[in-house]
Amino acid sequence: MKSKYQQLKETAYAANMQLPALDLVLFTFGNVSAADQALGVFAIKPSGVPYAELTAENMVIVDFEGNTIEGDLRPSSDTRTHAVLYKHWKNIEGIVHTHSLYATAWAQTLQDIPIYGTTHADHTTADIPCAAPMSDEMIAGNYEYQTGFQIMQALEERGMNYEEVEMILVGNHAPFTWGKTAEKAVYNSAVLENIAHMAFLTQQIRLDAPRLKEALIKKHYERKHGPDSYYGQ
Amino acid sequence: MKSKYQQLKETAYAANMQLPALDLVLFTFGNVSAADQALGVFAIKPSGVPYAELTAENMVIVDFEGNTIEGDLRPSSDTRTHAVLYKHWKNIEGIVHTHSLYATAWAQTLQDIPIYGTTHADHTTADIPCAAPMSDEMIAGNYEYQTGFQIMQALEERGMNYEEVEMILVGNHAPFTWGKTAEKAVYNSAVLENIAHMAFLTQQIRLDAPRLKEALIKKHYERKHGPDSYYGQ
Amino acid sequence: MKSKYQQLKETAYAANMQLPALDLVLFTFGNVSAADQALGVFAIKPSGVPYAELTAENMVIVDFEGNTIEGDLRPSSDTRTHAVLYKHWKNIEGIVHTHSLYATAWAQTLQDIPIYGTTHADHTTADIPCAAPMSDEMIAGNYEYQTGFQIMQALEERGMNYEEVEMILVGNHAPFTWGKTAEKAVYNSAVLENIAHMAFLTQQIRLDAPRLKEALIKKHYERKHGPDSYYGQ
Amino acid sequence: MKSKYQQLKETAYAANMQLPALDLVLFTFGNVSAADQALGVFAIKPSGVPYAELTAENMVIVDFEGNTIEGDLRPSSDTRTHAVLYKHWKNIEGIVHTHSLYATAWAQTLQDIPIYGTTHADHTTADIPCAAPMSDEMIAGNYEYQTGFQIMQALEERGMNYEEVEMILVGNHAPFTWGKTAEKAVYNSAVLENIAHMAFLTQQIRLDAPRLKEALIKKHYERKHGPDSYYGQ
Repeated sequence: MKSKYQQLKETAYAANMQLPALDLVLFTFGNVSAADQALGVFAIKPSGVPYAELTAENMVIVDFEGNTIEGDLRPSSDTRTHAVLYKHWKNIEGIVHTHSLYATAWAQTLQDIPIYGTTHADHTTADIPCAAPMSDEMIAGNYEYQTGFQIMQALEERGMNYEEVEMILVGNHAPFTWGKTAEKAVYNSAVLENIAHMAFLTQQIRLDAPRLKEALIKKHYERKHGPDSYYGQ
Repeated sequence: MKSKYQQLKETAYAANMQLPALDLVLFTFGNVSAADQALGVFAIKPSGVPYAELTAENMVIVDFEGNTIEGDLRPSSDTRTHAVLYKHWKNIEGIVHTHSLYATAWAQTLQDIPIYGTTHADHTTADIPCAAPMSDEMIAGNYEYQTGFQIMQALEERGMNYEEVEMILVGNHAPFTWGKTAEKAVYNSAVLENIAHMAFLTQQIRLDAPRLKEALIKKHYERKHGPDSYYGQ
Repeated sequence: MKSKYQQLKETAYAANMQLPALDLVLFTFGNVSAADQALGVFAIKPSGVPYAELTAENMVIVDFEGNTIEGDLRPSSDTRTHAVLYKHWKNIEGIVHTHSLYATAWAQTLQDIPIYGTTHADHTTADIPCAAPMSDEMIAGNYEYQTGFQIMQALEERGMNYEEVEMILVGNHAPFTWGKTAEKAVYNSAVLENIAHMAFLTQQIRLDAPRLKEALIKKHYERKHGPDSYYGQ
Repeated sequence: MKSKYQQLKETAYAANMQLPALDLVLFTFGNVSAADQALGVFAIKPSGVPYAELTAENMVIVDFEGNTIEGDLRPSSDTRTHAVLYKHWKNIEGIVHTHSLYATAWAQTLQDIPIYGTTHADHTTADIPCAAPMSDEMIAGNYEYQTGFQIMQALEERGMNYEEVEMILVGNHAPFTWGKTAEKAVYNSAVLENIAHMAFLTQQIRLDAPRLKEALIKKHYERKHGPDSYYGQ
């Protein structure tokens, strides 16, 4: 008998397999989940299983409190971070965590990624936020659970909306991205790595490279996301 | 019944497919067009369609005012930039726009790429120009149309001829290249990325690396492009 | 008649073939050995043989004094380094040596790799040690044999345990990694290259990037290696 | 009827095809020749022909004065540089020219590549020489012919022997390598790119990284090339 979560598992499986295809992970250093907000569950990669051995069947179904609902394997160690975000952000159904090289390097510097060009502006009008490392008390507690709050707090402090900014660096750790679907969240992970790579090169060539001017930020964002958008079909 | 633009569409399709093969694009961040100056039209990639789903059939035929002549899909959002350049530059029939990593990083610094070696001189005798960002008024207007003028103006200010210099960086944005054919324009995109990469490394190793001496600039350019050229068959 | 070391040779062969697959070697610049501590022998790559020509059969069986026990080819020139480490470290059965790009570059700077993030902390709580170049007397003597002592001495000076820290840079030379199995030692080689690459990028972006805070170092290490570890299956 | 140079053409063809396989060339920016010192000829890549269209048959046979002996296509534009070197260096039968990224970047800085580690010392005991750009008079004359003398002169000024140092950077231009066979010359090209890449990274991490100590330079070179060498089979 097929699981009633079969479709969700297949979505999560396909999205996870995009991470090695897009060169965003070494070994098992990353995970994707696909959620169903109506059912209040998400499918996520099992912990420590190599991508070559993943199947739709071994995805783990978890609820928004982090309890395993279906599956024989232990879910990703980052599962509770995913759970917290799905619980609070009702309009997302996909989350990705990777240790991709350039985004992780920026996270290790504890610096936001400055908006230097239109590649960045095509996706968000703000610098990519880097959440400050959490307090020792939070680390000692339920660490992955707290990581979810660390992410939400960083957006809040900057007055950012999770529907406008779909990517963040967790300071000293690595990036998280999200979106309306798991596929969009994976897309955002690749875009973030690309933006991080270009910003790195830009700074290396010219340390005082200027941030993108406001008029260009707005123009590029609106042509893709505005009410009169004319990008895509 | 076959379109009378069938050949043009196939040329544009083949040239577009070279961009991922040459590692010049992530997702859909780039586009190639192939023009027929006699007919006054060009075939261009449809907007936002992944390279894996492109076919010769879904290329869009557009005239030099930017009007769609044939095709069911919306053309690339950069279409009007292509249109302006074809309208004014009568000896080109190919244009490429990418967000390739190194060329885009230089564009984000708002700096020309200095001519450091013979790899560069084999293709052009000048520093690769970086067009200054456009004014807020131009941005607020017909942005992609103005990008065409921004490019032409940058060459004009430097006394450059579009038949001698077939590549440019649009400041804060990314590169455009062109040529007598779409295939040559794609070739120029890969060459520009290569030149941009080498110039980056050269500056990193030695910030005050000297520009190439005049005698070498002339020699290398002439052996490939001069009246007594002896490069190629 | 099959060799009684057949299984060991196959393990060593499979592990060696991972090096080019993981992009850790150019030509023959690397080697893996797989040991059997009970039998007091290890199987190692023959010297100077391209990876494309390796087979399980041409692995060389060597004892912990460095004597060839079985095999027609000369073992890797680094064989005596492997022998010394197996002889003294009774809980490892795999060793890898590569000249991977980023780890080797750090080794050439004679600097430890600072712990900048959780990718590093997931594997070890310490900076990656760089063993000081050996004295001229040691070099002039039995060089590869002395390299084994150079590695052990570097750990000792830092109060490090080879079961906690499974990777080292040999100053001016290149990395060595080890583990309970050859497969784990190869895994450690790829992880070290990844850590070295991220640390390089981190320093380039921000020269004074802070080391990872203690609480995070402990948390990430324990969730993977501690008594209550909850990483993997 | 088969050409009497058939074997030489096949050797040159196979060696040329290694350049794209080793990621050392973009488009046609490189060439390999294979010489027969007894016959006084070499087979070289035709000029401007893409690697995908090369065959053993379209290799061009040239004598040591640079005259085409056999072949319908024009030989590589660098042919006279190859001819001069074969004429003067009687113990080499292979030469390679590429514009590989890191070696070319060093050539553009006009700096020798310092010997930072044993990867370098395994191949040569000296810094990789960078020949000074030639005088305007030499450039205006028979340029490629003069490039051969520029290379020989750079070795001579440093008291280097072409049998000990098989690689050089031509200032502002790009690398040349050579060897007893075309295959060895290609190997040297890949090694040079690897050394150039590592030296770049080493300098970026630590600008004042020390050169390799003398005792290690000698040890590593001798274990591979000395009378008691014990590297390889």
